[in-house]
Parts: sequence; structure tokens; C-alpha cells
Amino acid sequence: MTNAKAITGLLYPVVQAPMAGVQGSRLAIAVSAAGGLGSLPCAMLSATQIESEIKAIRSAGIECYNVNFFCHKPLRYSTAQAERWLSALANHLQQLNVSPDAITAGSGRSPFSHELADVIEPFKPPVISFHFGLPDADILERLKTWDVCIISTATTVREAQWLESQGVSAVIAQGLEAGGHRGMFLSDDLTTQSGTFALLPQVVSAVDVPVIAAGGVSTTQGVSAALSMGATAVQAGTAFLLCDEADTSELHRAQLQSDAALHTAITNVFSGKPARSIVNKAVREIGPICDAVMDFPHTANAMAVLRSKAEACGSADYTPLWCGQNASGCRSVPALDLVKELVGAV
Amino acid sequence: MTNAKAITGLLYPVVQAPMAGVQGSRLAIAVSAAGGLGSLPCAMLSATQIESEIKAIRSAGIECYNVNFFCHKPLRYSTAQAERWLSALANHLQQLNVSPDAITAGSGRSPFSHELADVIEPFKPPVISFHFGLPDADILERLKTWDVCIISTATTVREAQWLESQGVSAVIAQGLEAGGHRGMFLSDDLTTQSGTFALLPQVVSAVDVPVIAAGGVSTTQGVSAALSMGATAVQAGTAFLLCDEADTSELHRAQLQSDAALHTAITNVFSGKPARSIVNKAVREIGPICDAVMDFPHTANAMAVLRSKAEACGSADYTPLWCGQNASGCRSVPALDLVKELVGAV
Repeated sequence: MTNAKAITGLLYPVVQAPMAGVQGSRLAIAVSAAGGLGSLPCAMLSATQIESEIKAIRSAGIECYNVNFFCHKPLRYSTAQAERWLSALANHLQQLNVSPDAITAGSGRSPFSHELADVIEPFKPPVISFHFGLPDADILERLKTWDVCIISTATTVREAQWLESQGVSAVIAQGLEAGGHRGMFLSDDLTTQSGTFALLPQVVSAVDVPVIAAGGVSTTQGVSAALSMGATAVQAGTAFLLCDEADTSELHRAQLQSDAALHTAITNVFSGKPARSIVNKAVREIGPICDAVMDFPHTANAMAVLRSKAEACGSADYTPLWCGQNASGCRSVPALDLVKELVGAV
Repeated sequence: MTNAKAITGLLYPVVQAPMAGVQGSRLAIAVSAAGGLGSLPCAMLSATQIESEIKAIRSAGIECYNVNFFCHKPLRYSTAQAERWLSALANHLQQLNVSPDAITAGSGRSPFSHELADVIEPFKPPVISFHFGLPDADILERLKTWDVCIISTATTVREAQWLESQGVSAVIAQGLEAGGHRGMFLSDDLTTQSGTFALLPQVVSAVDVPVIAAGGVSTTQGVSAALSMGATAVQAGTAFLLCDEADTSELHRAQLQSDAALHTAITNVFSGKPARSIVNKAVREIGPICDAVMDFPHTANAMAVLRSKAEACGSADYTPLWCGQNASGCRSVPALDLVKELVGAV
């Protein structure tokens, strides 16, 4: 068992969900400074960027923060897979006048590795969280020698029990309400996924480590309900998307503040893995679940080109509009205010 | 505004969800006698059956009980619709050696009407709950003159506000975790549906009438969390399915107690309207969502024949296995024990 005190000792039991692509050190700093746990999503950052972002956090005087990585198994794709995906996108590529030649391999999302452990080792971040399982055993053992708090996401009771058996410090119980990628890793069967009200009490009963409740938690009442169900803390993502310190694009902000945010779906069309987004043209017409997607994250290569073309015209038609089922808690305020509001400390 | 005291005055704030086809007066009596609110699902009963079931409840000395009706708009179907559905079922009909001629119009499910109001008027049941909206305005006005508690289900904030504007006594906020039919009526767009953790606090904020939380509530912690989020009571269905007084079939009970219950989906293949069921062959191979279904409830006619054939061979392949996302709270005990367990009064 690794060290859970970074979670159990928080001034306010609020973890800011790491949200790759829409936030960096600024939001993490603000949340940690407010007494919650700020998170730095590293999945889409280079080694140099990770180093500079952690330095920014440390320079701000923040001691307790979380760095987040993905743990997917990188899969090579076949030409046949790529062709099938391009064929599913054919109408869209044509509409936006995109040549398949414009689609490149992209920066991708690298899973956690010894090389990335090398990058963060000088800082020994107090909390390291993972999505899509855990890194390989030898990497995990290496991290455990740092006496850090290691966390990962469970979307089922079985995943929570498996994570505990691997010695994590805490598990995040991610209910189906949550925005962004499902952390599922023992099964890719969406019928196993359940809402926070169903999942949380079962996970709390099944494991002895602290449980962090995620999914639909964006109000004071939600936080207190999660704690009364046995959660040690909550993880909120969507609620922070409009905060001053988030890098959420204007297009994404506009969608979050509109009636569009009342329509979300679990979709695999943006990355190849299921994730909750506001329903836009891409989700509606290509998905929400499309059998022709490529393995994560290769699906994103073609989508990135469509997105870029559309966004240049002011359209969010192909933008992954990550959003949970409760955008009503979003506030265009400093993160400090939101953290205090969530815990009723205003 | 009608009279909410039947809800606000319960000894234990637990409403037993009406579950057509799997329970009758026996379960309702047991739950009401235990201090909760027992419900009699009338949607699939004849006028004579409704009368005799209510008499059974009254004879047991129960004063506070709920009668539940559907409020769907009955739609006639075209031959083309019926043919499209039969064509979608062709393989299944063939596998079970069912001739399309064996499919009859079935008993159907009648929406609430003046005729049904005539049947229940002598009893003036203290609580009348509806699914799929509310009956026509003149019927509703008639019920209001009885000084009863009128309830209906909301699956979105907009539906809750609409129900309140029609003068209901309380609204049920039905989270996506719930088993059985979604009560949705202002929209049939599944992307509007959200989990209890997201829906409940928003509904509580949006309306002034008491809110009953449904969906994934099957543990003591779940009940107390729902109350802490502002619910006046909870409605639990799945948790009661194994109770001694429920008429749940042995096939259904076996599925609820197996790992199959870890896999549920919202499906329209059993009735034409979306409902949460354990994933069986019908859900997996015809659905979960099939565009070729007939309007509710005509879809059920063909399914009833397939079900009957399969069940005769001991198979639940075509049985609607209604189940929420948290079957872990199911107990093979008298309902009295379950009600007390839910409120922590054991």
C-alpha cells in the first residue's frame, strides 16, 4: 500500500480532474492553492513540457499536486484499419475539402513509461494518478519506492478491487455521468458502466483504500452526498471548465453555457476510446459509437484535421466537447471560488 | 397544487417503485405495512383486476398506497411498421419456429382514461402516480377534486418544471441508473438523460414540490445521500425484485443474482420505449436500440411470443429482465426487512 495522506489530508476534499487539452499548471496551481488537489494532465505533453509545467507549480509554492498519465497499451494499426476509418469519414473529409494526405500520425498520447518516470523523478510529485489502469509492474514498483500517493480510476467494482490488489493508495470511482474518457481497462463493454449513485456505494463496500467519487459531482449537495456515501473526496472536472484559469477554448465555453450541454453522449469518435462529450455533428453523424474507429489514440489523427478545419471557420462540429452530465455547476469564476462553493465554505 | 402529505408524512421515506408484470398487491401491502409507500402497477391490469387488487390492499388494512398508470399517447401502427419489425426479428422468429401468424395484438398497455378513473374513484387512492407524463387536462382536473397526491416522473429538469406547472404534488427524479422504462415524455432523445447524481440536485433546485429520488438507490448510504441532496424520499425498484412478496419469475430472479446483472443497457426492443434491462440475447442481437421497433407498446406483441417460446424451454433470452444499475442491494427477504435496511432502521 502506498501513501494516501495527500488525499486524506486535504484541507478541502476536492480533486480537480486532470483534463488533457483544456488545462495546465495554471488551473492546478489555483485549485491546490485553494485547499483542494490540483491536477496536471500530462498525457498530451512532451517531456520538456511536463518538466516546465511541474516547475511552474513548484515555483508557485504548491507542495501538494497531482500529475496524471494514461496507461493504455499502445497498439499499431494496420492499413486496413486506417482505410476503414477514412471510409467512415469520407463524407466529412469531402465536405471540409480535406485530402487524406493531410492526415499525419500526430503527436499521439504516450502511455506512462520509465522515460516519463525519469522526467518526474526529480520532483517526486506527491500524487500520481493514472487513467486506463496502471503502468507495468516494474514501473509501478519504481514509483512505490518514492513514497508517493498512487491513484487510478475504477469504473466497476472489479476494477476497484484489481487496483487495490496492485497497491494503489486510493481509487477514483468514476460514474457514468463523468465527462471525458471512461477510465475502463478490464473490459471495454459499456454495459458494465454505471452511474455514480450505483457505483460509489458498491466500490466503497468493496475496497479498504480511500475512494474518490467522480461523475456528476458539481454542486455542494453533490459533494456532501458523495461524502455521506463513504467517499473520502470527490473529483470534479466539468465544473472547472469555465474557470478563469482553465484553457478551455471559447468554442467549448460557448457550448458549455448553451442548451447544447443538456445533450451529452458516450462516444468513441474522437479518440477511439469511449468518452463523454456534448453531442455535436461528429458525435451525431459518425457515432456516438462507431465500429470503424481505429485503436486509441489513432482515431484522433483524422479527427484533428477535421477539427482544425472546422474551428478555423468558428465551428465546434468536430471538436471533442468533453462535458459531464451536469454542466449546471460550471462557473466563470476563479477556481478558488469554485472550490469553496463545492465544499460550502463560501 | 395537490396534496403531498402522503409523501412528506411517510414513516420511512421509501417509495416502492411500481413494476408492472413483476409485482402486485402483495408487495405493495408489505411495503406500506412496513412504513414505506407500496405501489400497485396498473398499466397491464384489466379494470376488474385493478378493482380486486385495490380491494386486497384495503382489506389488509393499508390506508396509504399508490396506484400507478401509464400516460403514453396510444398510436395506431401501419402495416409497413409491423412488417419492418417482423423483418428485424426474422432470424429470431425462425430460430424459435414462430410463425408471424402466431403474433396477436396482445392485451397491450392502456393509458389512463376516464374509464380507469371510474374504476378507482370509489377508493380515491391516496397516491396516484404516472409514468410518461400526465393524463389529459380534464382527467387530471377530475383527479385533483379528490384531494389525492398526484405524482409523475421527470427525467430532465424541463420535465420536472413542466410537471410542477401542471400542479403535481411531487416529482420523481428518475436517474439513468433506474431499471425499467424511462419516464421521459417531453423528448425521446436519450442524450438528455442523466444519472441520479447529476439529475437530482438540479431538479431539487428547479422545483418547489417534494422530489423523490429514483435510480441506483438500493443501499442505506444511497438513501441517506439522496436525502442529503434534497430529496424528500427515494423510490427503489430493483432492490425489491427478490423480495418474498414480489412475483418476479424464477428466471428473472436467477439473472438478478448472477453476474449477468452487472451488464445492463437501455433498450427499446421489448416495448418500443427505452427501458433498462439486463443484457440478454434479445437486447444484444436486436438492440439495445433498434430503429425498426414499433411504437409503444406494439413492439411487445411479437416479443411476447418469442418470450413465451423461450421461457417454455427455460431460457430468459427474450424476457424483459428489468434491472437497474445496482442489483447489489437486492435481498431475498420479506419487504419489511428491506425497507428497514434501506433506512438504517435495522
